[in-house]
Amino acid sequence: MAGEFALIERLLSQVRPDPNTQTNGLLLGPGDDCALIAPPAPGESFAITTDMLVEGTHFLHTDSPEDLGWKTLAVNLSDLAAMGATPRYVTLAAALLAGDESSAWVDQFFSGFTNCAQKHKVSLIGGDTTRGPRTFSVTAIGTVHPNQALRRSGAQDQDDIWISGTPGMAALGLAYKLGTTDLPVVLEQSTYKALHRPQPRIALGLSLAGLAHSCLDVSDGLLQDLGHIAQASGLAATLHNAALPPAPNLVDPALWQQCLLGGGDDYELLFTAPTSARSKIQTLSATLKLPLHRIGQMHADGKAGTITVLDIHQKPVDLSNLRHGFDHFA
Amino acid sequence: MAGEFALIERLLSQVRPDPNTQTNGLLLGPGDDCALIAPPAPGESFAITTDMLVEGTHFLHTDSPEDLGWKTLAVNLSDLAAMGATPRYVTLAAALLAGDESSAWVDQFFSGFTNCAQKHKVSLIGGDTTRGPRTFSVTAIGTVHPNQALRRSGAQDQDDIWISGTPGMAALGLAYKLGTTDLPVVLEQSTYKALHRPQPRIALGLSLAGLAHSCLDVSDGLLQDLGHIAQASGLAATLHNAALPPAPNLVDPALWQQCLLGGGDDYELLFTAPTSARSKIQTLSATLKLPLHRIGQMHADGKAGTITVLDIHQKPVDLSNLRHGFDHFA
Repeated sequence: MAGEFALIERLLSQVRPDPNTQTNGLLLGPGDDCALIAPPAPGESFAITTDMLVEGTHFLHTDSPEDLGWKTLAVNLSDLAAMGATPRYVTLAAALLAGDESSAWVDQFFSGFTNCAQKHKVSLIGGDTTRGPRTFSVTAIGTVHPNQALRRSGAQDQDDIWISGTPGMAALGLAYKLGTTDLPVVLEQSTYKALHRPQPRIALGLSLAGLAHSCLDVSDGLLQDLGHIAQASGLAATLHNAALPPAPNLVDPALWQQCLLGGGDDYELLFTAPTSARSKIQTLSATLKLPLHRIGQMHADGKAGTITVLDIHQKPVDLSNLRHGFDHFA
Repeated sequence: MAGEFALIERLLSQVRPDPNTQTNGLLLGPGDDCALIAPPAPGESFAITTDMLVEGTHFLHTDSPEDLGWKTLAVNLSDLAAMGATPRYVTLAAALLAGDESSAWVDQFFSGFTNCAQKHKVSLIGGDTTRGPRTFSVTAIGTVHPNQALRRSGAQDQDDIWISGTPGMAALGLAYKLGTTDLPVVLEQSTYKALHRPQPRIALGLSLAGLAHSCLDVSDGLLQDLGHIAQASGLAATLHNAALPPAPNLVDPALWQQCLLGGGDDYELLFTAPTSARSKIQTLSATLKLPLHRIGQMHADGKAGTITVLDIHQKPVDLSNLRHGFDHFA
């Protein structure tokens, strides 16, 4: 068989489910014009999302291909997590350079992709490979009860605002990688992992069903993504500076503010929940061994979509120097 | 809103279903982390396929963006057609050049994409746009009864082999476009349409359920794709040269043979069916106003996957000069 078909075959064989068991609702796996999947369990719906990663925009030629394979899948699973969905199936379309099809680079990319797929029990059900500048496009399919799906439009007046993990670490890692800041050695590994090995918060998303009113994953920056929740919910939002994850030791506070509020790529979950849910969410944090920071409130007074950050004196923090979010066309 | 979000919004608004009706099983449309779709009708499964188109590999910078938008969706719907599935939903991930987001080029691309979506009643349920070399990746989702789905592995001994339309026209159009052949004026438009405006054979695919034993859409070339059916079905195949669509007037027979047998990109359906289905298939051809050519037979004698083309004297045609199929990595 020619290179293209051999490549697809090699890719799929690594993530293909056992054809003798056909668990997970897969009626027909890769290799035909389409894959066939059975309906979800009674009462459930399918959640579907798609994301594309392009060399030069999302990753560099020199990046670890194994990390890139992981991240290509992880950022898509993160969208399922943000919806409270259980990941089930993914498709992968890849444009690759001449020679890639038999390279160690592609083997390592697949290895990272496969590791992420296996960790989160998703089946690769279809693929396409073609020649072109390295580009990867994934479509991820999960299952969720539609009434329990976490939408960004569901925030209510007086909801607490929560964020998982430590957003800002990926942006800090990127600043270090690009040489625009130095970092203490102790932070090199954690910021590298935040940037290159994001963990889709699947368990958190599933646990937030019935608990949170709204949710999304922070990919464009905390302020910008909170703006999406506020806009979609017709509310304003206030953040308390003192409640935000503090700057790590030896990191310039101004740089940290930029990374924390303006940086993207962390794939942490940003969600709102009623004050009555506080103790349950704190228990959840302990159970999942995942920090969950209560950082502010939603409110009905003020223009919808407006975000204010208050200092400890309840005065608005000047954010005029902040570069907002991440926009490939800005 | 920034350029990226405005672009997604503009794109989706053109193909978005009416939120007040939410027909077609769409529970939550674009704009959140995921779209939500209801289960298919009882007994049905979802059919899923993905394809990527890259500038320089699948299309040229100078190609009509409206035609490209059409084709980007059409080649994915063709895979649903080849499975006998009804198209329902699509996602689109697009890498675009700086400046594209507000260009007439993108407007025209969306226009072509939207025309194809509306013609085939599919909803665009999600998207991603990013900056990069122009690349488009679509995932298409359809519905089909799994027992009626047309698989490439289902061909049986003595099945007739059929092909729809006039495969070879797209390759002839490409040869003309690349300046490697001249064409009579009368063929310029029809070969252009075959190459740039392929028609997914949805109605044919739906009608073949219960009639055909195997099916795929010819995207890699007739011989290569017939090889896929033969290989998957564990059979050999014989084609009769005299039964193949003849060379159009004034087209060099050797060039036509190359286009017909080796050229891809026509997206016609290649299928096998028992001899008992002949009259029904001929009736279908008349109903659909679509030529259906009976061009050969599958058989159990001979090495699986082997294709022989016989001339009118039942002698094998010499195909040693034929360039086989289309492989981006060959």
